[in-house]
Amino acid sequence: MEKRKSIALDMDGVLANNLVHYIHYYFQETGILIKEDEVLGLPEGECLPDKGAVRRYLESPNFFRTLPVSPNAQEVVKELQEQYDIFVVSAAMEFPWSLREKRDWLAEYFPFISWQNIVFCGDKHIIKTDYLLDDHTKNLVTFSGTPLLFNTFHNVHEERFERLQDWMDVHRYFLG
Amino acid sequence: MEKRKSIALDMDGVLANNLVHYIHYYFQETGILIKEDEVLGLPEGECLPDKGAVRRYLESPNFFRTLPVSPNAQEVVKELQEQYDIFVVSAAMEFPWSLREKRDWLAEYFPFISWQNIVFCGDKHIIKTDYLLDDHTKNLVTFSGTPLLFNTFHNVHEERFERLQDWMDVHRYFLG
Repeated sequence: MEKRKSIALDMDGVLANNLVHYIHYYFQETGILIKEDEVLGLPEGECLPDKGAVRRYLESPNFFRTLPVSPNAQEVVKELQEQYDIFVVSAAMEFPWSLREKRDWLAEYFPFISWQNIVFCGDKHIIKTDYLLDDHTKNLVTFSGTPLLFNTFHNVHEERFERLQDWMDVHRYFLG
Repeated sequence: MEKRKSIALDMDGVLANNLVHYIHYYFQETGILIKEDEVLGLPEGECLPDKGAVRRYLESPNFFRTLPVSPNAQEVVKELQEQYDIFVVSAAMEFPWSLREKRDWLAEYFPFISWQNIVFCGDKHIIKTDYLLDDHTKNLVTFSGTPLLFNTFHNVHEERFERLQDWMDVHRYFLG
């Protein structure tokens, strides 16, 4: 029997839908509702009219703990686990206050992922899995396995990597 | 020029001296002073007469934040950085409350290690560095690079790996 392949899954923008959360926080603060198609192609940190807002939200307690789960992510990850070794790999070290919140978020929404398969790091190039599914090209360029770009607003103009549109597309790619 | 080699350094028992901290906590609690040579060869979790004590201390707030640094670790790591890419790789995910404390501890005692080079994980077998310096053989057996055993009380009878006695020995091994 062949060795099971391993997949590293990014959190922000992949397992979690950060854009919806940014838009929600901005609406709560200003009463202005940003539409998703208004921000296509903008850098993640500057997707709101107030250029300091995203960083401010990221730094506010509870932001990471209350992120909405990406549609179908839970079901697809659970199915992937039957045939692949699944790891969550998040560059959480940049936001030390997020470490506990991210761990608790995973325990709530992905309780079927063991703590042994969770990695919080800085630079992802020291991660040795067969696949990396990430929305940020900076993580994909140095990855030694097969890089896969998870489609989101800030990477729509990126053309260097195979793009998976959403979690149903992830299902199709890995489970056919 | 040759590519710089990378070294993953474990925290507990390697950068930090856990045994001294266990003994100190036990003395505070009971007034009984355990000597280091009394615990040689005992499993880490059962090195104190009260078999539940180590786990209780690990679970108490501030334990990880106040761990003593291993002798010479700071100086040697700083010197290693001149010739190697240094990563801290800790199996912190088992103790979620420790995540922030470990990050803050590193910021205080090893401020010269960037957050980009810190990894908190569960299983270390997905770490891709050239060397792993660890006190636990369970981490070394699945490692794909060169495994190095850092000498400490609970691994004195282990013979499967090259053993480095202390941080001066680490200096000798890597810097000659």
